[in-house]
Amino acid sequence: MTAHQSHSSSHRAGVPGVRELSHTDAWTRLRSMVVGRIAFTLDGRLELFPVNYLVDHGTILFRTGVGSKLAASMERLAAVFEVDGYEAESGEAWSVVARGHLEPVLDTAGIVEASALPLFPWQAGEKAFFVRVVPEDVTGRQFPVAAPETWVTPFTGMRRASEE
Amino acid sequence: MTAHQSHSSSHRAGVPGVRELSHTDAWTRLRSMVVGRIAFTLDGRLELFPVNYLVDHGTILFRTGVGSKLAASMERLAAVFEVDGYEAESGEAWSVVARGHLEPVLDTAGIVEASALPLFPWQAGEKAFFVRVVPEDVTGRQFPVAAPETWVTPFTGMRRASEE
Repeated sequence: MTAHQSHSSSHRAGVPGVRELSHTDAWTRLRSMVVGRIAFTLDGRLELFPVNYLVDHGTILFRTGVGSKLAASMERLAAVFEVDGYEAESGEAWSVVARGHLEPVLDTAGIVEASALPLFPWQAGEKAFFVRVVPEDVTGRQFPVAAPETWVTPFTGMRRASEE
Repeated sequence: MTAHQSHSSSHRAGVPGVRELSHTDAWTRLRSMVVGRIAFTLDGRLELFPVNYLVDHGTILFRTGVGSKLAASMERLAAVFEVDGYEAESGEAWSVVARGHLEPVLDTAGIVEASALPLFPWQAGEKAFFVRVVPEDVTGRQFPVAAPETWVTPFTGMRRASEE
């Protein structure tokens, strides 16, 4: 393990207020969302896209057209998929990360099955292909965020004169 | 240019309904958001995180603790930053991608200046460092999405019997 990998681990654990999600909870949240972001490196170029997805047979399934996502899937490239959300009630945010590799859905049975799923491309247009992220590792964490009123707005940092 | 890069280009242009955003519009949207996602590869491991950010001096500035984001910034690694949104009125979504490299804010003047900005970590806890994505390329696109009622919900795909 290199120093950087050690840094990477400390990033995820031991930070005050950060809770690791259970495996079950991470999957539940993964199933609860509609849009996530996928990253992979194709021909030395790092790509990062939002995709409309669906959890299917333990994989993250999405539609795509001819392009880098399809090309990356044909090469079974490593990919990371992330979804996050904010819970106003608890003032907490969460993020789930699935690491694995891309695979195209090429067999006729798989395409027929995938076509029957309620899965639509976020981006309209021809998206004739199905691609999966086959996750080897799914982790999640939940954490309190800075009070919403301190978030970035055009007026953040200003105080009302009468309160001073 | 390889076949894959050619695929990548065709992904972004010529797709029905997809409009490239102007440079100015892409930056305006980048400035309008609070949370984006950043991807980079550190020691062969692809990382993908949500971050609370602020556009500052033409860079994407965020806070971080000791971890992979800081380590990546010390190495000036290549990074991709993405923000997206959905406009209910127009039924369109958009995505802006900034490509560049990471840099830590190390000089005292820079740290003092950054500390005065209304920027808070999304994740609470100690986030003593400032890191920038210095973009070399910022692009954006807007596109119609499948009708919201066809999006993935527990009832998507079901029809009311009385309507059939």
